[in-house]
Order: sequence, then structure tokens, then C-alpha cells
Amino acid sequence: MSSLPAPLNPPNRILLGPGPSDVSPRILRAMSAPTIGHLDPHYLRLMDEVRTMLREVMRTKNELTFAVSATGMAGMECAVSNLLERGDELIVCINGVFGGRMADMAERQGIVVHKVEAEWGQVFELAQIEDAFERHPGAKAIGIVHAETSTGAHQPMEGIGELAHKNGALLLVDMVTSLGGTDVRMDEWGVDACYSATQKCLSCPPGLAPVTFSKRAEERIASRKTKCVSWYLDVSMVRDYWGSARSYHHTAPINMTYALREALLMILEEGLEARFARHDLNHRALRAGLEAMGIEYVPARSLPMLNCVRIPPGIDDAAARKHLLDEFGMEIGSGLGPFKGKAWRIGLMGESSSRRNVMLVIAALESALAAQGSPAKPGAGPSAAQALYGSRG
Amino acid sequence: MSSLPAPLNPPNRILLGPGPSDVSPRILRAMSAPTIGHLDPHYLRLMDEVRTMLREVMRTKNELTFAVSATGMAGMECAVSNLLERGDELIVCINGVFGGRMADMAERQGIVVHKVEAEWGQVFELAQIEDAFERHPGAKAIGIVHAETSTGAHQPMEGIGELAHKNGALLLVDMVTSLGGTDVRMDEWGVDACYSATQKCLSCPPGLAPVTFSKRAEERIASRKTKCVSWYLDVSMVRDYWGSARSYHHTAPINMTYALREALLMILEEGLEARFARHDLNHRALRAGLEAMGIEYVPARSLPMLNCVRIPPGIDDAAARKHLLDEFGMEIGSGLGPFKGKAWRIGLMGESSSRRNVMLVIAALESALAAQGSPAKPGAGPSAAQALYGSRG
Repeated sequence: MSSLPAPLNPPNRILLGPGPSDVSPRILRAMSAPTIGHLDPHYLRLMDEVRTMLREVMRTKNELTFAVSATGMAGMECAVSNLLERGDELIVCINGVFGGRMADMAERQGIVVHKVEAEWGQVFELAQIEDAFERHPGAKAIGIVHAETSTGAHQPMEGIGELAHKNGALLLVDMVTSLGGTDVRMDEWGVDACYSATQKCLSCPPGLAPVTFSKRAEERIASRKTKCVSWYLDVSMVRDYWGSARSYHHTAPINMTYALREALLMILEEGLEARFARHDLNHRALRAGLEAMGIEYVPARSLPMLNCVRIPPGIDDAAARKHLLDEFGMEIGSGLGPFKGKAWRIGLMGESSSRRNVMLVIAALESALAAQGSPAKPGAGPSAAQALYGSRG
Repeated sequence: MSSLPAPLNPPNRILLGPGPSDVSPRILRAMSAPTIGHLDPHYLRLMDEVRTMLREVMRTKNELTFAVSATGMAGMECAVSNLLERGDELIVCINGVFGGRMADMAERQGIVVHKVEAEWGQVFELAQIEDAFERHPGAKAIGIVHAETSTGAHQPMEGIGELAHKNGALLLVDMVTSLGGTDVRMDEWGVDACYSATQKCLSCPPGLAPVTFSKRAEERIASRKTKCVSWYLDVSMVRDYWGSARSYHHTAPINMTYALREALLMILEEGLEARFARHDLNHRALRAGLEAMGIEYVPARSLPMLNCVRIPPGIDDAAARKHLLDEFGMEIGSGLGPFKGKAWRIGLMGESSSRRNVMLVIAALESALAAQGSPAKPGAGPSAAQALYGSRG
């Protein structure tokens, strides 16, 4: 190597994309505490605390609740590959990137996938799901995305668990983007397996995937005829590491666990209801501001933490995002799939969901539109957003 | 939840087990730099720098060199599941835990495994490997462990790649414990796929698995009839994220990448030869000290960074390790499999490989033996170790 790279010096961004979100300095500080052994009695206590707090945030009593030692998509693979085996039938609801991804993951393992599709940006009605079970009575599980990060659509969960269980199937839910930013009720909704990620509304760096499995899912796993196709993600072994046996399976990402623990602690200190109300208020303020600027939302039923909006006619996507990054150090997300070049995804997740960021992203977008000669109703956005906050602070 | 956990306060350990090893404060500081986006132009530059430095440390020119977004065992799963598909034959050399694990991983995926076994603590001779290829001419790859962390055995690599290639097979090597602590020569040895981990001789927190694939391996991957069974570990997609396409695949563990980059920078600043010499000297000093105390090594050919030694007769394993942890804040590893309760594994990896730690672990072991009424030759260990350092510093 001719010369060594320069000292690390990442820019100070404002992360308003689809994740990672801004990480509190308190979490970064926790993460940089001295590394200890993965079987150290002190570390085992930290693991227990993480499990207990995760259950609280996920609103579940599930014993089998822990964090997969990899990022969110490994959580998806963990759920799929443990609940199902080669030849099993799985219904997958697809209305964006992540449902499609679940289908791909399952098919690679020889699982028979039945796709139920809705337009990108739409959510699923109970009738569609009922119909899918009628057409595929052998389905052992149904997979659905609670918060579709590619479209911003917020899937209602009521009744799906009941339908699945009536048909002898398990309910597998993607909560990557929703967990910690809006209410998720694992037990009440009858969810049997759910996965999330640390870098969205938990506002922790990426690197772990919280998961939970119901008693029903545990029974399914115990009755498998074949081993889980993934050794790394096999919960029957990982459980013995996180559980009372403390058997060595793999070396957990110690410092990431410090970070997740701190993030969960901050969530519980804030309180779930207060946190959800904060996400909701900032979303409504952003929405009021954007709509006042003439910018439309893609989904009919939008998530509070992920705002997928149509790029105004005549505006160049890449140039506008470059303007935000260069002039404001601000990141927003581009569109995926059919929305590539046509939509922006503005995240207000966890630490990033603040009045300051709402006002700033509206101002920055005004600037970006003006830079392209489209100064849509100057001043309208900020006033509309401001109105939502009323006379508060 | 009745009450929230106390503020994070992990103890200050001296990590002399089989990993994680001690992490330099400089790396912890780098890791806690502000999180940026996984598609940020600045992050993409950091990824390139990590790849370039990894190639240097791995002594390879392989284009396909990157870090899997999970811990070391996911690196093993990545190598196995990309090189081979259902029905393919794989020879696995087993002389400890990790060869056995590779066989388990492969079998779960429907790969036909041919096991070649050697006694735990022993290494493989070329003749055994030659014989395996004669018996299994259809083998598409052979897997072997360079540094068997469960026994401390150091496998010689010369000639194995040639044998594999002559037989139309790829060479897959576990370098989890060796990378960064002793010489590994990917290209010279004809290695086609290799995986490692950050928490051993790279002295970075656990969370990433450096991997590299040869041109020959890339061709094999390109000619697969089926998709890689794991979506998360599919290098044909991960390559497009780390490569010039920069396609979104998953969200990389940003802050872990900061840490790995800093760790690699520190290794190249020290210089590979100087680093290997340091590991070698500290190993020889420890060995001299332990042998002077009457403690024997398990493997005939020991790794420099992992010292697997027999627990002296009459000494209680758990009590001795508890003594080290409670009295000295020092972690050493227990034995695995047939060595459970019979051996200790003393790691001198990366940052942990220092004269200070050698002298301290010898003193701590003297104390632990004395506490159990077995004060084996007091003073002999420290003097013998000290002698190795000569009059230096």
C-alpha cells in the first residue's frame, strides 16, 4: 500500500433518510465502553436486561426475544428460516421492496411461496388475506410488512393474526421501521415472529436485529423435521446462548449490545406513549408543511416515521438530494423500484424525529426547489408546519 | 417494567481468552464517531479504504474482499453457502470445534460432506489430504482451519492449495484466529475463500467478518445453477454494494466499519512483520514461563496467539478462572469438547499480546494455583518469561 488512509473524520450529517437515523451521543458513548468477554457474567446480565427491555418495547411476554447478531435483513432471514422448512408453503404479502425480499429469501430455501400483491403504496385488506388462505389452505405461515420502508405505507394489523391462526398458520411480521416509533403490539395482534433493526426508530447504529418468537412459533420450531438451513441464525442454538444455558454459539457483537441497551433505556425513560406521540406530531407537522408546498404523499395511509412523497414535476431527484447533502449536510432517501427518481423518503425516526429537523428539512427542500428554479409558494411550508406545534416551546 | 436497569458500567477486563481481545481506546473512539448513511459518498470511500487495507493484511489481490455484516461464524457460512450448492461434495478437515461446525453448516444446506479427521490438537499432513481427494474425486472444495481456536493447533498451509486445484477443487480456509497475528498468504497459498473475524488479532470489537474470494471462486459462484441459499450472505449481491455499482442490499453496520478501518490502520502502521514478531515473542515468553511452572501445551505445533495448555492435576478449572476474573479482572478461556475442564486457552491476540500481559497472566496463574494449594515452583514462571525479553525495555 503506497500510503495509509487519513484519520477517520466522518461528516456531521442530519439523517432524515429511511435509516440509519441520528444516534444520540449518549448511545455512541455507551457503545465505546471497554469491550468485555461474550461469556463474562457482567455481559450475560446486560443480555438479560436487553431482553427484558425489548419485550417491553415490543409489548410481548415472549420468552424467545433477543437480538440477532447482524443487521435487520438477517432478522428477516432468521424468522423465515426458523419458522419454515423446505417444501413448506408460505403466503407473502407484497406491496413494496420488503415483501418481495421475503419471498426471494424463502424461495432460495426451497419454501413454496404464494404471493399476494397490492399496488405499491397501498395496504392489504383483511378480505384479500382471507381469500389467500382459501386459495392456499396448506400455508404454514403468512408474512406481511407492518411498515413498508419503500413506500411509507402503514399496514393495519388488526384481525390478521386471528385469520392466520384460524387457518393453522403462523403470522410473521416485518417491523423493521415501525418498532420504537409507533405502537407495535406483538401479543395483542397475535404475531408469531417479528424482526426489526436497530438503526430506525431505536436510533442506534445498525448492527443488530431484534426478534421475538411466540410460544406457538417455538412449538413449530421444536417440531421441525430438518435443521434450520442457517447455522448462524438457528434459534434453537442461539436460544441456548441467550437463555439460562449460556452455551457458546457465536461471539456476540458486545459493543453493539451496549448501544442497543442504551437505546432501549432511552426509549423507556421517554415512555412509549410519549415517544409515539412525538413521532406522530412531527409527522403531522412535516406533512402540513410539505402539503402547503404542494408536495403530495404517496401512500394513503402513511407511517409517522417515514414520509414517502412525490418529487414535484420538473425537479431533478439526484440534484435535489445533492443540494441537501452539500448545503445542509442532510440526508433524505431516494425512491426504490417504481418510485426511483419519482419519490423521496423522508425519515423522522427516533432521535431524528424532532421539531428542529421538521423545520430544517422544509427549509432545505424550499432551498433545493428554488435552486432548480421551482420556488413553490415560499414561506408556506414553514408556517403550515409551525402551526401544528402551536405555541409550544 | 418495574424499574429501569442501572447506567452501563462494564468492568475493565484484561481479555486473554480466545476472543474478544482487548480493544485499543483509539478504536473505541473511532467507533463512536457520528453515524452517517450507508450510501453516503463519505461512507463509500471508507468502505473502499477498508477493502484496500484488508487485501494488504490478507496478502491478496482478490477484488472480492470485504467484511460480512455479522460476526465470524457468518463469515464461515458466507464462504460455505456461496462456493457450494445442494448436492455438491465438500471435504472438511476436522481436528477441533470449527472444522466440525463447518461440516454442520454445509450439511444443513444439503451439501454432501466427507469428513477427514485428525486427533484434537493435531494438524493435517498433506498425505491425508491427498488420500481424501483420492477417495472423493468429485469434491468441489476442501475446507480446513488454519488456526483451530479450540485446540491452539497451527495448520501448515503449504501445498494444500496445489493439491486442491490439481483435483479441481477450491480451497476454503478458516482464518478467524490467525488473521493479523501471524502470516496468512492468501494468494501464495492458493486460498480460494477465507473468512475471519474482527475480535481476535485485529483487536476490534466483534461484529464483522472479513472475507476474500479468489478469481477462481468468483467463477464458481458465477456458474452456480441455484441461488445462494442465504439472501443475506449472497456475495453476488453484496458485491454490488461493496463494488462500483453501490446497489443497496442491506444497511451495513456503519460504526463497526469505523472500528475495523481504525484497527486495520493500526496494523499497517505497526507493520505486518513487526506485528507477527511481537505475537511470536510474547508467545515464546509465555510458553517459557508456563513450562517453567510445569504447565504443558496441548498442540505439538502451537499458534502464537492462542495458547492451549493442560490444567495441572488437582486444579479446579472453574475456581481458577473465577480467581483470575475476581482478583485480577482477567479473562482466559475454558476448554471445549474433550478439553472441557482439562485445558485453558490463553489468548495473546492483537492489542492483548504484550509483555505486560504475559508477565501478568503468569503471576495471576501462580496466584490461582497457590490459592488451590498447588504453588508449583514459585518464581520460576516469571523468570523464565523475563529471560525471553532479554534486557529490552
